[in-house]
Amino acid sequence: MNFYEIVNKRRAYRSLLPFEVKEEMIKELVELASLAPSCFNKQPWRFVFVYGKENLEKIFSTLSEANAWAKKASMVIAVFSKPDLDCIVKGREYYLFDTGMATANIILRLTEMGLVAHPIAGFNEEEAKNVLNIPQEYRIITLIIVGRHNENYTEVLSEKDANSEKNRPPRKNFNEIAFLNTL
Amino acid sequence: MNFYEIVNKRRAYRSLLPFEVKEEMIKELVELASLAPSCFNKQPWRFVFVYGKENLEKIFSTLSEANAWAKKASMVIAVFSKPDLDCIVKGREYYLFDTGMATANIILRLTEMGLVAHPIAGFNEEEAKNVLNIPQEYRIITLIIVGRHNENYTEVLSEKDANSEKNRPPRKNFNEIAFLNTL
Repeated sequence: MNFYEIVNKRRAYRSLLPFEVKEEMIKELVELASLAPSCFNKQPWRFVFVYGKENLEKIFSTLSEANAWAKKASMVIAVFSKPDLDCIVKGREYYLFDTGMATANIILRLTEMGLVAHPIAGFNEEEAKNVLNIPQEYRIITLIIVGRHNENYTEVLSEKDANSEKNRPPRKNFNEIAFLNTL
Repeated sequence: MNFYEIVNKRRAYRSLLPFEVKEEMIKELVELASLAPSCFNKQPWRFVFVYGKENLEKIFSTLSEANAWAKKASMVIAVFSKPDLDCIVKGREYYLFDTGMATANIILRLTEMGLVAHPIAGFNEEEAKNVLNIPQEYRIITLIIVGRHNENYTEVLSEKDANSEKNRPPRKNFNEIAFLNTL
């Protein structure tokens, strides 16, 4: 797959089947994340890879009701960081932006592997910090829900979720997000 | 190139040669950015593609002294956004993280095309907003400096910059950024 094919294949599916988590895969994902660029090479990104029935159940307990579909994941990656792990240039904090670039590497590699990697914001951050033993001063930015795509999904999904399962949610037009030389 | 090869090829080089900017390339980069995931599909990312001698000179005037090397770029991509273009979930702002994921797509595609795409934080944000006509309430997060890599660089670089030109700046070890199941 070339890069366009990987990016185009990536979809935030909600219908998941299990897969076998291997430590080798985790090592590869961490290496890819670590190769991302960051302000003065600060590498502010941190990840907890959660897998195995008992560990998963604890992190599943922190999900919002709307994310019940995520409980079929075989792995959850908690992405966390804090402002002082990265540059702060005249009020511009770089930790979220740089962690986003590193997280993209993980999501795209999982996509290339044929898996679904669906980042979510709907979880109880305080509870998740407790479960994962992440100190208070950090922010858990997202949980990446990882599974194999169930193409013949049988889950009970809302009409909206079922729709976004079938068709990619619409994207903004070129002119809404891009400008040539000046606004 | 598979995904690992692209990620591994990406380097923040400072020795640049010119290339021809084509609008078709810009369209492709914007499409790739737009396919990134974002909280509730908000797509908070915005980009100004700056090219052509006169336009470039204006944006070059906003660079910090340490980024004088960037004045050999044939294109500069200003990445901008603002908090209310994306989700804010219990104080967690998503605009920088999501824009980071979309920006990764641009940087990686430029890398696949054989170009250098070097994101920098050293610029005068107010002046850059003026030059690009970006309203005050936005943040310019980064300028991506785009050029062709000059492998036989002749520029006067500081010892530190010349070193990072030859060897990738060191990455943190697995155990410094990744955790299995709990910290």
